[in-house]
Amino acid sequence: MSQKTDKPETVAIVGLGLLGASLGMALRDKGIKRLGWTRRPEVREWAVKENVIDSTAGDIHDVLSQADITVLCLPVPEIMRCIEHNAASWKPGAIVTDIGSVKAVVVECGEKNLHPRGVHFVGGHPMAGTEKSGPDAAFPTLYNNAEVFVTETPDTCPEAFARIIKFWEDINTSTVKIGVREHDILVAHTSHISHVLALALTEAVLDCPEKEQKLRYSGCATGFRDTSRITSSSPQMWREIIENNQPAVLETVKELEKRWRHIRQIIENKQYDQLQDEFAKGKKLRDDWIRYKNNTQHCNW
Amino acid sequence: MSQKTDKPETVAIVGLGLLGASLGMALRDKGIKRLGWTRRPEVREWAVKENVIDSTAGDIHDVLSQADITVLCLPVPEIMRCIEHNAASWKPGAIVTDIGSVKAVVVECGEKNLHPRGVHFVGGHPMAGTEKSGPDAAFPTLYNNAEVFVTETPDTCPEAFARIIKFWEDINTSTVKIGVREHDILVAHTSHISHVLALALTEAVLDCPEKEQKLRYSGCATGFRDTSRITSSSPQMWREIIENNQPAVLETVKELEKRWRHIRQIIENKQYDQLQDEFAKGKKLRDDWIRYKNNTQHCNW
Repeated sequence: MSQKTDKPETVAIVGLGLLGASLGMALRDKGIKRLGWTRRPEVREWAVKENVIDSTAGDIHDVLSQADITVLCLPVPEIMRCIEHNAASWKPGAIVTDIGSVKAVVVECGEKNLHPRGVHFVGGHPMAGTEKSGPDAAFPTLYNNAEVFVTETPDTCPEAFARIIKFWEDINTSTVKIGVREHDILVAHTSHISHVLALALTEAVLDCPEKEQKLRYSGCATGFRDTSRITSSSPQMWREIIENNQPAVLETVKELEKRWRHIRQIIENKQYDQLQDEFAKGKKLRDDWIRYKNNTQHCNW
Repeated sequence: MSQKTDKPETVAIVGLGLLGASLGMALRDKGIKRLGWTRRPEVREWAVKENVIDSTAGDIHDVLSQADITVLCLPVPEIMRCIEHNAASWKPGAIVTDIGSVKAVVVECGEKNLHPRGVHFVGGHPMAGTEKSGPDAAFPTLYNNAEVFVTETPDTCPEAFARIIKFWEDINTSTVKIGVREHDILVAHTSHISHVLALALTEAVLDCPEKEQKLRYSGCATGFRDTSRITSSSPQMWREIIENNQPAVLETVKELEKRWRHIRQIIENKQYDQLQDEFAKGKKLRDDWIRYKNNTQHCNW
């Protein structure tokens, strides 16, 4: 790395949607120069006016070439396109990271295109987001207490890795070091499968003959609202995430189906004591996790 | 019905858990005399002290015998036990209703035991609740904007039915008239299946080898929190609900599995355009429902 000191750094945020704009807000008053870029000029202007970033430029090259750290806050395919198209823009010693929900394809692309030029790539994935998207959905505390995965490979520069860890911890997150494949299998379980499941549930409940719809609407309350919440996420984003993590998602599908079949058989066989035991087991698993989040991550769930 | 007028009525609430205590709070300052009863004397004392109810008694008979309207806020098996054991306590013309999540077994029990004595039974089911339970979890706005199913059978007394409709609407809910079997099939879809699904998901994600648990904990964020929320509900309550609605739950299981298999095949076949269409379809279904709730039920979801 070319920096000898941690301060007055220039951070470029590419993509000013929910994650990018919230990141700009979280970096306010941290002694960092925040550059930002996104395709739509009116969003760039909005971001400067609303103090989401300090400045912008019409040409993405003018932003990337100044940055010590660049955070690519884009959908997964666009992260890869941005790296491929703009590899020559970054200065040697600069660090590029991202917020993409899958890491193997992204890190491979980043290392292949940037490392030969002396630009460091470190994969990142903050476990933060809502079902909403776009700059209007951004808020400054989105990352508060979130856990952020930062990936390490044999080609990762240790100083660049340490700098990205510090970058995330400075905005009130906890970081977790992880390998890229390990990451992708993990999030298939903890995140991607939920989106597939919530979709199936939403269709089973709400995709009904029109004459039944009003009653179905009435019968759905806060339980369904929360179980199905992530079905309101961006269809394109979730298609791209699953497209780029298909083998791990299918492994998780198998695991889920095993659990599902077991519970369904218990209900079919009217083994209600056993059903109650399963519900108690699930409650304990979830309550223990919630307690962990509240105690160690200072969540208030 | 023996009442010739709507006012100074005595309402008895039996069961002072989340739903019963919240009902007492919602009925404050409505010109109604609120009696309450629950098994534990210390909860009865707490309820009077905290203005959840106006008064109580040591013997449930003394409460039921005074009541114009009795709301049984108990788990499904206890609703039925309470009706069977106390059928002789109510005065002729009194109305008994309940908040149970299944209606066929409860309404059959209520009509069989009470109608021959001139006591009216009308089944009810407010779509309100949280994953928490017990009096400590109660709050006065639990029922705000909730939809309440009120069941009608050939044996339902029209005046008693109208009185129960008014009772619920007076505390800021919307009522929906429905048949008992129609109700049970409906809520199997809109509520019960979600509990089975959330359980399977929680087990697939959190029931893992101990060495992986810390990472799984980190990988689970707000998406999993909400999708799995209802797994923290009472295991006994949900066992009892499914036990008393098993055929309808199994029908819904089939519907859900059909949707699930379809989506899984799309992922297996790498038909990602089609996957995006499914995500878009699910999003539209849910967003339309949310819009309906916000516009017509004054929710703020």
